Amino acid sequence: MSQQDILKTTTIMKVRFHECDPLQIVWHGNYLKYFEEGREDFSRKHGISYVHARENGFSTPIVKSGCEHKLPLEYGDEFVVETTFVNSAAAKIIFEYKIFKSEKLVCTGQTLQVFLNEKRELMLINPPFFADWKKKMGLL
Amino acid sequence: MSQQDILKTTTIMKVRFHECDPLQIVWHGNYLKYFEEGREDFSRKHGISYVHARENGFSTPIVKSGCEHKLPLEYGDEFVVETTFVNSAAAKIIFEYKIFKSEKLVCTGQTLQVFLNEKRELMLINPPFFADWKKKMGLL
Amino acid sequence: MSQQDILKTTTIMKVRFHECDPLQIVWHGNYLKYFEEGREDFSRKHGISYVHARENGFSTPIVKSGCEHKLPLEYGDEFVVETTFVNSAAAKIIFEYKIFKSEKLVCTGQTLQVFLNEKRELMLINPPFFADWKKKMGLL
Amino acid sequence: MSQQDILKTTTIMKVRFHECDPLQIVWHGNYLKYFEEGREDFSRKHGISYVHARENGFSTPIVKSGCEHKLPLEYGDEFVVETTFVNSAAAKIIFEYKIFKSEKLVCTGQTLQVFLNEKRELMLINPPFFADWKKKMGLL
Repeated sequence: MSQQDILKTTTIMKVRFHECDPLQIVWHGNYLKYFEEGREDFSRKHGISYVHARENGFSTPIVKSGCEHKLPLEYGDEFVVETTFVNSAAAKIIFEYKIFKSEKLVCTGQTLQVFLNEKRELMLINPPFFADWKKKMGLL
Repeated sequence: MSQQDILKTTTIMKVRFHECDPLQIVWHGNYLKYFEEGREDFSRKHGISYVHARENGFSTPIVKSGCEHKLPLEYGDEFVVETTFVNSAAAKIIFEYKIFKSEKLVCTGQTLQVFLNEKRELMLINPPFFADWKKKMGLL
Repeated sequence: MSQQDILKTTTIMKVRFHECDPLQIVWHGNYLKYFEEGREDFSRKHGISYVHARENGFSTPIVKSGCEHKLPLEYGDEFVVETTFVNSAAAKIIFEYKIFKSEKLVCTGQTLQVFLNEKRELMLINPPFFADWKKKMGLL
Repeated sequence: MSQQDILKTTTIMKVRFHECDPLQIVWHGNYLKYFEEGREDFSRKHGISYVHARENGFSTPIVKSGCEHKLPLEYGDEFVVETTFVNSAAAKIIFEYKIFKSEKLVCTGQTLQVFLNEKRELMLINPPFFADWKKKMGLL
């Protein structure tokens, strides 16, 4: 695998009825669910997830998120979420997202996660389990 | 308080935009959220909740739910959830719900909860904390 | 296709993080989303959907739904939704659902839909587009 | 009313069970629902809403949103959403949000809405109904 394959995952999804609002388009807040699905798909494929964090005594809450919409998604639309892991020296997990429908850009987004220990204290350096994962992936 | 006041709570709510679907009405699954708000309101008013259960080592998952719709709710509608505790001899928590808009019946519903201990084993008799609550409320 | 293949669809899904609650299991109301995905999958495979209804001037709101839980689903669980169309002489759309995890029954459910015309009046006989579909499928 | 009262609304809310995730805190995407409630509350109090837009032939989709989290909210927490209308010369609706629990800052957020006409074309100047509202409110 090249560095780019390591860092990027694409996930195909479909808009569900209950995700759409009275304007007949996906309610803006539901894009964070799509991003989460992209992030989880990335995590499964690369062996790192909220479960690993928890087993090692850490939680990884999202402390910042954003979304910019270019085009709406409608009921039944099939779309692709492109999830990119942004390698950072700091003790943070940064993902960027792009959603495409028929190769047109629908939206872009970002999430930022931090590490908390069991006392919910902020970690200033990467926990060992995460540093190990980065090493294994050639990201450190 | 009369027995009826003990057993019934009314909660006023308002339909939110993101709860409505492309048919311009509240998506049917969101009524379970309204029922939950009614149930929580009942629990707060009467000093019994999922938190009490948890502190006593029990969880109270919902094992059955149902909803029958008579009229739709639309964006901005104000409505009343009437939550009734159905007293049962068995180790179960039964609630019935009625939702009204301008005194017209919108829907009826029911939920059934059981008690699980920390090993997720089903309790066949009421846990002491729940029996105590029933006694205090004059329901036993 | 046999009659049974016509009437039944199976859809594979996975529990997402945001569908789970503080008890670490899927929140009970989210099963109606899984049922909806099963119903939509059935509809796509068999060429009948809320879009067809709308194009023909009808809406098909859910007027009754229910769910009985046997086992919990947890984060990351893969499961199968089995959606069965229940053929009825009345102007109703009835679906039954079974969810399985590793071949164990997780829950059962039902939904009942009716036909409303553009004035939101209840149809007492099947609209032509639906009768046609039933004929095509050998259900009439 | 002073200019500040015109521009700012505070809304009291309570965290519901189904809004919390397996980390026992409000799932990050649900803050966009709280922001929406704040925005709707602002709109009701000041006589401007998605319904007014629609009646005038416009929709006002959210094209950008963001949230920064400082502290978690947990089940049962009562909190205040402070919604501020940011007056802009451009044909945009900008809101800023602050959520407080016991006077501590929980999170900040922003949304940006634009005006689309019935053909979903972007309006480059404020539609008359919105300009009228601004005039009435002393914002123009």
